[in-house]
Amino acid sequence: MSSLSEEADRPRGSLRSRAAALDAAHPLPPVAVTEFPPLPDATLYLDGNSLGRLPMRTSARLGEAVTHEWGHGLVRSWEHWIDLPSRVGDLLAEGFLGARPGEVAITDSTTVNLYKLAHAALRDGLARDRDVVLTDAANFPTDRYVLAGLVRDLGAELVVLSLDSIGGPSAEAVADELRRRSDLANRLALVSFSHVDYRSGALADMAAINRVAHRAGALALWDLSHSVGAVPVDLTGDADETGTGAGSGADLAVGCTYKYLNGGPGAPAFLYVRREHQKRLRQPVQGWFGQRDQFAMAPEYDPAPGIDGFLTGTTPVLGAIAVETSGGLLSEIGIGRLRERSMALTGWLIDLTDAMLAPLGFTVATPRDARRRGGHVALRHPDAYRISRALTEQARVIGDFREPDLLRLAPVAASTTYTDVWDACSRIRDLVERGAHLRLDTRRSRVT
Amino acid sequence: MSSLSEEADRPRGSLRSRAAALDAAHPLPPVAVTEFPPLPDATLYLDGNSLGRLPMRTSARLGEAVTHEWGHGLVRSWEHWIDLPSRVGDLLAEGFLGARPGEVAITDSTTVNLYKLAHAALRDGLARDRDVVLTDAANFPTDRYVLAGLVRDLGAELVVLSLDSIGGPSAEAVADELRRRSDLANRLALVSFSHVDYRSGALADMAAINRVAHRAGALALWDLSHSVGAVPVDLTGDADETGTGAGSGADLAVGCTYKYLNGGPGAPAFLYVRREHQKRLRQPVQGWFGQRDQFAMAPEYDPAPGIDGFLTGTTPVLGAIAVETSGGLLSEIGIGRLRERSMALTGWLIDLTDAMLAPLGFTVATPRDARRRGGHVALRHPDAYRISRALTEQARVIGDFREPDLLRLAPVAASTTYTDVWDACSRIRDLVERGAHLRLDTRRSRVT
Repeated sequence: MSSLSEEADRPRGSLRSRAAALDAAHPLPPVAVTEFPPLPDATLYLDGNSLGRLPMRTSARLGEAVTHEWGHGLVRSWEHWIDLPSRVGDLLAEGFLGARPGEVAITDSTTVNLYKLAHAALRDGLARDRDVVLTDAANFPTDRYVLAGLVRDLGAELVVLSLDSIGGPSAEAVADELRRRSDLANRLALVSFSHVDYRSGALADMAAINRVAHRAGALALWDLSHSVGAVPVDLTGDADETGTGAGSGADLAVGCTYKYLNGGPGAPAFLYVRREHQKRLRQPVQGWFGQRDQFAMAPEYDPAPGIDGFLTGTTPVLGAIAVETSGGLLSEIGIGRLRERSMALTGWLIDLTDAMLAPLGFTVATPRDARRRGGHVALRHPDAYRISRALTEQARVIGDFREPDLLRLAPVAASTTYTDVWDACSRIRDLVERGAHLRLDTRRSRVT
Repeated sequence: MSSLSEEADRPRGSLRSRAAALDAAHPLPPVAVTEFPPLPDATLYLDGNSLGRLPMRTSARLGEAVTHEWGHGLVRSWEHWIDLPSRVGDLLAEGFLGARPGEVAITDSTTVNLYKLAHAALRDGLARDRDVVLTDAANFPTDRYVLAGLVRDLGAELVVLSLDSIGGPSAEAVADELRRRSDLANRLALVSFSHVDYRSGALADMAAINRVAHRAGALALWDLSHSVGAVPVDLTGDADETGTGAGSGADLAVGCTYKYLNGGPGAPAFLYVRREHQKRLRQPVQGWFGQRDQFAMAPEYDPAPGIDGFLTGTTPVLGAIAVETSGGLLSEIGIGRLRERSMALTGWLIDLTDAMLAPLGFTVATPRDARRRGGHVALRHPDAYRISRALTEQARVIGDFREPDLLRLAPVAASTTYTDVWDACSRIRDLVERGAHLRLDTRRSRVT
């Protein structure tokens, strides 16, 4: 690292040459080059952790779906739309989630899915006199809000751990809380965390936390929004069958498809319910897409067997088709290869930050151990908000800002080169050196 | 009617000539001709009550949204996406729903919205010791299932009226039930019905039912899925301000945008919360899109003021844009004009059924008074299932089937001519006369 820092003081071409050498040695997968052509105006997009880019084939597929399937096929197209939730669910299960066929479906939003599964788990807990849900204060807002509403409505208690926000949740922190509050041993119904911290990018040890939760008699529900498509997830593995598998033994999960899965803005989210729990757990939103033999329209609700029983209303077809197409593309490349490249690119970004940006007041808020982080890097800077805005408006470097002082940058594996990362750091340095951000207002815009 | 019947026995050109004359006297609005060109293979589409057609401009707008807003604008496009729920909500409020600005938003599915609003209303009732929800057995399945789940989870009671399925719910039936069960006077929290019956097409008298509900101390929640875009709805009117307005005084409503609003398969639904109730009612799914000052990501959930507090997760952007574009087109034509044309076209279809199809065993299951029906006509026939399938597969007449014996046909005002209706009836007659449907299996396919 010190060598990079020395290089940063040399003529600016030097680190750029190293970026070029890295790109030559580790080029983008050929299919990624075709699918993600450079953006107009040399825009550098490092916000795929918020909204993933549009692959060419997804653009074409959406055009076909609109014109032919909706426009001409019309209601007849439901013959092949009706299975979208489980068909795309199976694709995600195999390609990204380490789940078995029939354990994943796409439906609703992450928020609504979290509500449904947490409700199901908490009711299951209450039936065993377990009335506590555990989460952490750094969890994504919608997760905390949903859980807070649920415990209020169902008469339970939410315990919110205050954790070091860089490290994210850990098995130790959960175990400590169980020691501190001995009543939880008989009261804990559910633990719910995010796999990758939306701010720091810290990656939690899902298997270790699940073990602690299970020993305490609780279920574990994971929000995979910031990990799916960036980090291999092994929800089920084969631990339940042989007792020795690599799976994390997760019970429930939800996640977003418009970040690293490139499903497009507001594309339907997914939910995962471990096969062994599907019969016992009942979600509260009893809709016709979750009904057995849906078009019989029977008088009584009778949930469809398997994961279909966790669906609710009509599938958002266009979004589901986009997830299917983009997810298919990414699984062609392979999550292992994407993860390897992502770890290298985030490492390169951290190295360049140390070398080029640390002198300007930036510090790295993301774990430096690649195995402990997800797909994005958070840089802390007292003026992060204005820098983020100035980068977008004046330097065509698209990252994003998170309160209070974080600039998030995601060098997404399928569409970012080592040179892009250097170029972004270089533009950040130039902009901050010039003080271009200082002319902006510190008042937050509606969308940050 | 008898004159039509006699004509039907004359050479087949005769009623067709009358259709042509009607088309000459009452042509499609010019913009509709441009926006809904004939389908390939002379397909006659009479299922806009299930999935509305794709307007040309919506196709173009979606292409632009995918390529430019998602593809190039990427996360920056949230600047104009963030307001989609209330912006499109206001468009629907003014153009179709008779609601005030800030009373309608698009979000989630109809099922999820119904769950949210019924939950809010029932909790509001429970706070006043009111624990009964009233609906009817002919209500759309997802409505009955959602309400059944809610009363189970919240410890309330669901009263299900068994009504004449042609007539749909009525103020008299609600009043009768209140007389029959005197305990309801102090226990009724919510009545929830569909405005247009999804099978018979019967249109309920919303204002009359609301009056009975309000007198009983209950709120009224309407499912407008089969009326919005076909029938003018006057949710709010000005009754609350002057006491004399034409408004129905509805409290809550939900509805679907992919039928008569042409929003595309699985487009986000809408919800309506009367302004006076917005502060008091709280929906249960506390998500980040419903949070005041969303991107501050504060520790505690604090619902946004107004209709935004009823949002949950990330807006399905493509679907919302399609609703905005198609809804804009239809409001250009005007719901009054659409309704007038729809009443005439459904009347023409009923007349032709009497003249051409009654001899083949078809009866009309829809109110014959145009003011008492919505935008579709249901024909009863013992072999309706096989006829519906044969029509699609062999005669390119797309209607749909509903258990146990209904063929639904919607001569949608913006895209159907009088000649189309004659042509459809003619193809139905030819097919049934030939017995083409008798070769099909009576076993139901997954999607009917």
